[in-house]
Amino acid sequence: MVCNLTIGRPKYAAVEARLGQILARAEALRAELTRLATEDAQAVDQLMASYRLPKATAEEKAARQAAIEATTKQVVQAPLATARACVELIALAQETAQKGNPNAAGDAHAGMFCAEAGLKIALMNVLLDLKLANDRAFVAQVEAELAPIKVRRLSLFQEIDALINAR
Amino acid sequence: MVCNLTIGRPKYAAVEARLGQILARAEALRAELTRLATEDAQAVDQLMASYRLPKATAEEKAARQAAIEATTKQVVQAPLATARACVELIALAQETAQKGNPNAAGDAHAGMFCAEAGLKIALMNVLLDLKLANDRAFVAQVEAELAPIKVRRLSLFQEIDALINAR
Repeated sequence: MVCNLTIGRPKYAAVEARLGQILARAEALRAELTRLATEDAQAVDQLMASYRLPKATAEEKAARQAAIEATTKQVVQAPLATARACVELIALAQETAQKGNPNAAGDAHAGMFCAEAGLKIALMNVLLDLKLANDRAFVAQVEAELAPIKVRRLSLFQEIDALINAR
Repeated sequence: MVCNLTIGRPKYAAVEARLGQILARAEALRAELTRLATEDAQAVDQLMASYRLPKATAEEKAARQAAIEATTKQVVQAPLATARACVELIALAQETAQKGNPNAAGDAHAGMFCAEAGLKIALMNVLLDLKLANDRAFVAQVEAELAPIKVRRLSLFQEIDALINAR
């Protein structure tokens, strides 16, 4: 919305090309996040189904355990990709607040706060899902991917706090 | 959703009555927040309209200024009520996470993070709108109402941070 309130106005000609890129990327991320929400629901359904597999015999128990391990790894993927997409959205919203029509900067910040909530929810879900995984190497790999995202979340608090206090 | 995954299950009989109250109150707050979003949009339209009033003569200037002052006070009301409703929703989500079906506690926390984003956006909008107001007594009164909400926002950061780090 802020991009659309900026693009085409002579006053903002210098930033128009960049805001056009941001708008296109933000729309692509919106589509990706919608797709990830569906993927996430499907992966959770598959995880639940693997817990419901029969466990009467040793073979069944082994097959069930293998299915749980595989679907657990799968269930981590959508929230992890969601967290990454939210980090990118937050950066785009910040840049839009700085470069776009200042009368609408509050709306860019509102978008940033929503993306921050998405980031927290995704991060929480990755951490919850990881608790179900037994494969140490897999857990370590996901935790390594999460590390910069966690750092970003903490720095965001400072930035958002400064923003609200600056009003 | 967490309330609905708890209510009616024998295991959670002890908390059923309270979760029924929370569910009813959360639904009422959802309706109130939807209404406030419409009210907010209408108040912003009225504020914009008052800025567009004619200002050719002294009388017109005075009438326009009075209209701006009145609509500015009006425009603060919806985000202020939204901030209050979000603070209440956050408390309800926290209580639901503690008392409800633990398998769905993550969803209660997700609701809490969304309400937190709503609180930040509402708070930011009140502070932005207040900058337009000239009536010192009005500004002081709104700031007094905001003080406990700001304190709550800061304590929330600690709580949410602890939550995510505890995973």
